[in-house]
Amino acid sequence: MREIKVGVLGLGVVGSGTVRILQENAEEIAQRAGARLVIKKIAVRDVTKTRAVSVDPALLTDNPCEVIDDPEVDILAELIGGVDPAHDYVLRAIRNGKNIVTANKEMMAKSGHDLMEAAGAANRDFFLEGSVAGGIPILTAVKESLAANRIREIIGIVNGTTNYILTKMTEEGANFASVLAEAQAKGYAEADPTSDIDGFDAQYKIAILASMAFNSLVPVDSVAAQGIRGVTARDIAVAKDLGYHIKLTAVARQDGMGGMQVRVNPALLPLSHPLANVNGVMNAIVLRGDAVGEVMFYGPGAGSLPTGSAVVGDMIAVARNIVMGSTGRIGCTCFEKKRMLPIADVETKFYVRVLAADRPKALASIAGVFGDNDVSIESIVQRVQPDGDAEIVWVTHKIREANLRAALETIQTLPAVRAVSNWIRVEE
Amino acid sequence: MREIKVGVLGLGVVGSGTVRILQENAEEIAQRAGARLVIKKIAVRDVTKTRAVSVDPALLTDNPCEVIDDPEVDILAELIGGVDPAHDYVLRAIRNGKNIVTANKEMMAKSGHDLMEAAGAANRDFFLEGSVAGGIPILTAVKESLAANRIREIIGIVNGTTNYILTKMTEEGANFASVLAEAQAKGYAEADPTSDIDGFDAQYKIAILASMAFNSLVPVDSVAAQGIRGVTARDIAVAKDLGYHIKLTAVARQDGMGGMQVRVNPALLPLSHPLANVNGVMNAIVLRGDAVGEVMFYGPGAGSLPTGSAVVGDMIAVARNIVMGSTGRIGCTCFEKKRMLPIADVETKFYVRVLAADRPKALASIAGVFGDNDVSIESIVQRVQPDGDAEIVWVTHKIREANLRAALETIQTLPAVRAVSNWIRVEE
Repeated sequence: MREIKVGVLGLGVVGSGTVRILQENAEEIAQRAGARLVIKKIAVRDVTKTRAVSVDPALLTDNPCEVIDDPEVDILAELIGGVDPAHDYVLRAIRNGKNIVTANKEMMAKSGHDLMEAAGAANRDFFLEGSVAGGIPILTAVKESLAANRIREIIGIVNGTTNYILTKMTEEGANFASVLAEAQAKGYAEADPTSDIDGFDAQYKIAILASMAFNSLVPVDSVAAQGIRGVTARDIAVAKDLGYHIKLTAVARQDGMGGMQVRVNPALLPLSHPLANVNGVMNAIVLRGDAVGEVMFYGPGAGSLPTGSAVVGDMIAVARNIVMGSTGRIGCTCFEKKRMLPIADVETKFYVRVLAADRPKALASIAGVFGDNDVSIESIVQRVQPDGDAEIVWVTHKIREANLRAALETIQTLPAVRAVSNWIRVEE
Repeated sequence: MREIKVGVLGLGVVGSGTVRILQENAEEIAQRAGARLVIKKIAVRDVTKTRAVSVDPALLTDNPCEVIDDPEVDILAELIGGVDPAHDYVLRAIRNGKNIVTANKEMMAKSGHDLMEAAGAANRDFFLEGSVAGGIPILTAVKESLAANRIREIIGIVNGTTNYILTKMTEEGANFASVLAEAQAKGYAEADPTSDIDGFDAQYKIAILASMAFNSLVPVDSVAAQGIRGVTARDIAVAKDLGYHIKLTAVARQDGMGGMQVRVNPALLPLSHPLANVNGVMNAIVLRGDAVGEVMFYGPGAGSLPTGSAVVGDMIAVARNIVMGSTGRIGCTCFEKKRMLPIADVETKFYVRVLAADRPKALASIAGVFGDNDVSIESIVQRVQPDGDAEIVWVTHKIREANLRAALETIQTLPAVRAVSNWIRVEE
């Protein structure tokens, strides 16, 4: 059987899962791919470090160019993460005629487009299933299985860390800081949690996914990203009373007139929503296509073996193409140039929680300001607090964010209002 | 742009959805496929009949050979269903050098293997995504995205009609016959509902899916199939009290020693099971792989456009291969010959409901017979009926079906026992 040589950059969490799968399932993979996938070389920072997977030390090098420039390497798996130096390594590998497999969401979201174009121009494969939602095969679904559809909408939970934190907050009534500390102790959150907590990880993923689904490049810096630091135990409790769970959602919609909205934000989801009960570190993505209707994909969104499953799945696809002489079979699919809707123009329902002093006056004056700004109201719940203040929770109809912001700017200056405690989007 | 000619057999539910998608999304499909998919000819039984989709009458013929033998047709979509004459049409088309796309589960389960082998030998594509779970891209996931995995287990709800009926029975406490009649009136069940109700439809689907997932042909007649006629409103109510929903499940497991169990049966699923709350006509499939862990796919398992989405998705894959000269890139994957476990040897937990007259004696004597047959018991719930009889519900530990059957044969002859009312598998 033909041998196809694999070079690997990085032997961290994803790299070691990838190598382990290639070792343990070698026979099955060879049968399915029609070729034996053989690891030729692995570049690591420190060749002496103990690894989660046992590897022949002769395969290791601390010089990435020994992998990138090895003429025998057919498939380069870039598993080091980050833009720099990963981007340059990958570009150099493409110029050397390698097919690329990557799980690097940040690189792909920030500067993946030119890499895919370069690979396409060289008739080489460039696959990135592991970069979005770990083991869930969502990119292949969008690019291949569901290719008959105009995809109208994607809403997903694509970050396990924040979903774990929000789930814990929901189940235990705990506050954000204490659950974050616990998640860090358990290894579910990084020591520097910014990328997850502030929504950047999800921002990268939805930018990639929306680009593929809408056939139009979504510049990552045009994706409004809001994390979960501002979600309080009180918001979660109030939302629950109203029949909602709060989740960090990654949303992409197109309006059929060439406009796209792509964003990351906490959102209230009704309990009947397919994502409302996706809990813990799990990921799930709901996708609506004009032909297929609504489909959902659910599974582990991160981790060594799940992400390795995606990476090796991509390698098998490349191997099949190498065997058939059909690499470059599916290249970059950003054929169109669609317009990004500014976040201020994005319409959803909103939840608004206000603390007010003088109840009758507050209700009337707030309602007046909402009316002045074309913010129409679906429901109001008012609760008297122990101190005599009132907590007034508003759920609006679908309105533009700009209108809500304008209204809230005035509302927080009203004499009867102590504070606009929070406002969060509501999805249906 | 290159044109690829499509021939279609059948313009029923799936055929009209397929044609409609090819018409309405022609531009997107052309861009993604790298070629224009043009319908050359459609064979129908009656060319004068009014159709759900508007088609140029010049495309229609009542002679299937005009499609199969047309030298310009590159892709033949077989959408007539059933084994005969579909199988012979498809074989003839392969011999004519056509690539095949089909949504015909019965043909694929009963005699698909030789068709796939013939297509492979001719280096032609043979895709069948629409044959299992409608619009849910499960076959492509198993054959491609998850190809790095040893798939250990599949459990799915793959028949919408029975899921609709069981959901209604669960929600309304209604009995099977009345809900079936209502489903027939609404068009969710056929006038002759046997294929759905008695589990044959699900049997075809799980035979196909397991063959691909386990890389070993699963002969459809070796798949034990039990439908839902025997599930009563009482069973559903009792199961609910115990924390379970009853679903018609299609299950495939391999034991790692070359043994496979593949079966269709009603099962009690704990409410925390990902399939327990898949309701109405929706389908869902949970898949466990050694690398990816547990993933779930959820969506519409039937219908004109959802199944058309799968069929056209397959056409796009074929078109990409035609453009690259790589048809036959992924052929039949039944490389191995694994052993089917007889249903009598399949171990699960079981729910057993017994009506007994003399309670203290009944409990002791039934327990004795279970003990004699190595049927160990996890829980017992006993309820006194208005007439003084007792309903005793047993949930066993994991045991072989053969042991349970042997025990129940003796139990139903016990003087204290009025009837063994039902027994149903329990999944965890």
